[in-house]
Amino acid sequence: MKFRVKDMDIASGGVLVAILNEKDAKKLDLHSADRILVKHNSKSITCILDISESKRAVPEGSIGLFEEVLGRLSIKRGDLVEVKFTGKPESVKHIRDKLFGKELNYTELYHITDDITHDRLTDIEKTYFVAASFTHGLSVKEVISLTKAMVQTGKTLKFSGITLDKHCIGGVPGNRTTMIVVPIVAAAGYTIPKTSSRAITSPAGTADTMECLAKVEMPEAKIKQVVRKTGACIVHGGSINLAPADDKIIEVEHPLSIDAEGQLLASVMAKKHSVSANHVLIDIPMGKSVKARNIREANHLKKMFGLIGKKLGMNVLVVITDGSHPIGNGIGPLLEAEDVMAVLRNDPLAPLDLKEKSLMLAGKLLELVCECKKGEGLKKAREILESGKALQKMNEIINAQGKQKKPELGKHHYPMHSGKSGVVVEIDNDVIAKVARIAGAPSDKGAGLYLTKKVDDAVRKGELLYTVYAESEFKLNLAKEFLVQNNGYRVK
Amino acid sequence: MKFRVKDMDIASGGVLVAILNEKDAKKLDLHSADRILVKHNSKSITCILDISESKRAVPEGSIGLFEEVLGRLSIKRGDLVEVKFTGKPESVKHIRDKLFGKELNYTELYHITDDITHDRLTDIEKTYFVAASFTHGLSVKEVISLTKAMVQTGKTLKFSGITLDKHCIGGVPGNRTTMIVVPIVAAAGYTIPKTSSRAITSPAGTADTMECLAKVEMPEAKIKQVVRKTGACIVHGGSINLAPADDKIIEVEHPLSIDAEGQLLASVMAKKHSVSANHVLIDIPMGKSVKARNIREANHLKKMFGLIGKKLGMNVLVVITDGSHPIGNGIGPLLEAEDVMAVLRNDPLAPLDLKEKSLMLAGKLLELVCECKKGEGLKKAREILESGKALQKMNEIINAQGKQKKPELGKHHYPMHSGKSGVVVEIDNDVIAKVARIAGAPSDKGAGLYLTKKVDDAVRKGELLYTVYAESEFKLNLAKEFLVQNNGYRVK
Repeated sequence: MKFRVKDMDIASGGVLVAILNEKDAKKLDLHSADRILVKHNSKSITCILDISESKRAVPEGSIGLFEEVLGRLSIKRGDLVEVKFTGKPESVKHIRDKLFGKELNYTELYHITDDITHDRLTDIEKTYFVAASFTHGLSVKEVISLTKAMVQTGKTLKFSGITLDKHCIGGVPGNRTTMIVVPIVAAAGYTIPKTSSRAITSPAGTADTMECLAKVEMPEAKIKQVVRKTGACIVHGGSINLAPADDKIIEVEHPLSIDAEGQLLASVMAKKHSVSANHVLIDIPMGKSVKARNIREANHLKKMFGLIGKKLGMNVLVVITDGSHPIGNGIGPLLEAEDVMAVLRNDPLAPLDLKEKSLMLAGKLLELVCECKKGEGLKKAREILESGKALQKMNEIINAQGKQKKPELGKHHYPMHSGKSGVVVEIDNDVIAKVARIAGAPSDKGAGLYLTKKVDDAVRKGELLYTVYAESEFKLNLAKEFLVQNNGYRVK
Repeated sequence: MKFRVKDMDIASGGVLVAILNEKDAKKLDLHSADRILVKHNSKSITCILDISESKRAVPEGSIGLFEEVLGRLSIKRGDLVEVKFTGKPESVKHIRDKLFGKELNYTELYHITDDITHDRLTDIEKTYFVAASFTHGLSVKEVISLTKAMVQTGKTLKFSGITLDKHCIGGVPGNRTTMIVVPIVAAAGYTIPKTSSRAITSPAGTADTMECLAKVEMPEAKIKQVVRKTGACIVHGGSINLAPADDKIIEVEHPLSIDAEGQLLASVMAKKHSVSANHVLIDIPMGKSVKARNIREANHLKKMFGLIGKKLGMNVLVVITDGSHPIGNGIGPLLEAEDVMAVLRNDPLAPLDLKEKSLMLAGKLLELVCECKKGEGLKKAREILESGKALQKMNEIINAQGKQKKPELGKHHYPMHSGKSGVVVEIDNDVIAKVARIAGAPSDKGAGLYLTKKVDDAVRKGELLYTVYAESEFKLNLAKEFLVQNNGYRVK
């Protein structure tokens, strides 16, 4: 059956959607979310059907198409296209099986991952996959299959020989250890091609922070060149499409703020596997507002990462760290980048917690590859940092990636003073992150918070706890409004 | 923050959606599926946020609104509205809890049901609810709470005294027993206000079939008048909004063809409870392509219906019937209506299986209310049917609801002949239903199938198995195309 094209003048954001009028859909016994093949001359494309009840949006005899579909079929408004029913992707059956508790094999998980990568599944179908994986759990075998499928359906970066990597499963504001660990390890002579993500719900990702100093978006060939030259890189993984299914799964987890364990494990391991890493350090912060809420959960994750690493031929070391409060003083891309550079410069005012945590992580990573005794790694890391070799390496990396003009700190600021005297007993990660985001981070690079007082610090009534920075007065006011209810600090 | 209204010129079909440009959303730290309060003068409404990456669809500073929102706020293109972030509904937390395996209480299930009813949840959130209920199951207590919540969030029809009802959990083509059972029971002097549904995935629902004979859409007052006059009605439940959350849950189940048991139980019991039924007969067909695939599943459902009925103060009787093949000869609204009338007229050519099943059900229902011995009910039902009293009652009901001109049988037909001689050992419910739907049923009332041969019938090669009827040649051809692969009959 033929339909006349109506240009909906909207980008659907990836998913290929076609809209038919309710009456036409009834005629063809088609339902919302059915798959239809839209054909024009020799080109054809499978779309997810949406149904319009309104004649005005899509009249009978017409088909409403979005920019993605128009582009791929090289058609425009008024053209005639043929429409045929095609079954749902095979993967929908596998998702249904998982919902019934069946263990999926590699081929089945590959189909699901491939269809997620290419936007061939609806939100409802993806949600069933995540919900089923969450409630039934994924077996170790399934996590390994999913990891491999995520790698297979994306790009990979090939490096030979010993290749290091580190990963933090996140949730702690500040905590920008990667940008200190990477130059230390590279200065020690190892290869560490670090791909990082941008913030999704946090005030800054490593990619956002590094971007205050250097370019982070670059093609595969350029990344390889940087790594060849300096032994390392700190770039945005998203720009080269490593394990792209991962982000699309996270989109569906976000509305319910869940972290399906199997998907988390596969996500991390797929990103490491995609860059040929064979010696990997994983940082699991533990605390009430992060993924591992207690030692039982942290140990379980630790065990799982180890098991899966082994099966993938990776030497994985997991460390459990304190995730109960922010690490470093700056929260937000620029403020975090300043913290990092202060540590690398051995500035006496650099945040000590960030420095010591980074040294510990770098030390562990060095112990994982060099055959040095326990404690030797930390010693070596400290030596590299304090001698200025890490700073020198960081500057090499920045220059190789392309130095950026540093953004300016937000002109508008607001001091948050303590309402009482005592000791800071708690800093709420979620509140601190939310305030920094409302103030503009991470898209406003100069926005965020600078923490003057940290946990265990004594404070007098009226003394400064932290300063909020924003690039516009409007956003600073939004942040101030939010702070009226809760400033994130507990003083006792 | 204020935004200028852009009329998206699309009906979103219930859900209240507002679209902001990506850049504005970032500024306000808003994400897709966040809830925002859109305010204009004294009116305000909570919408689900969608984000546009394209400037063309929704430019910065604008807010794209759909017809439902424009209408409720009495605004038009170019007006200025205020936008505020509001938290997600409380019910999203409850859904999350259910995903983690928590048992929900009445208040929590009420919030979820109420938000589903009023389109305050996104597809993703609704899917998590269904998936969590499916994988963790709903306890008897939860099913009862959900049933009550579904009743509370919809309309109810009050009748006093003994009120009967029947329900079939479906999946069997033909099987139009309701339209025979209701007049028999009403002719015996009982009150049976039957509300039925339209087809969703089947070729005809009772409402679609009854509509070939009488009006089925009417307001509450008219239904009450019909029941007062005749003791019964056979109307479309959807027209008076009984337990409306139910249909919205089914929409989310459909893409994966799942039937979450808890939701199924609550759905059926809520519809019965909404019409004050206190004596209810439930028909559970058993067969490989219907909900209860074996006796274990059927018995489990039987037990659950009984238990929940008791807790709701309903006298529930469950019968397990043969759901392995179609019941009656006609498939499709008009053809099924003809079968029903033939049985009521005591036509010697009326399908015997439909007649006997209906008599059995009517007999059980009579035994449930009158204090007659086992077997007496069936005798009484047969007496009422064969004396013509049931036909007379059906005509009363038709006249009271408003007689309709009977639609015509599809002019285009196609005979399906047997490819070999033998005995019909199987008729595939799904294939038969699909062919009838492709031929135009249920929206083309005169479309469908007439089965000449049934299971266990002997057939010679070349002999007629069934005839396909369609209102247009185009649809008949679509059905013929489908039949090339599989005609649904197995002859051995």
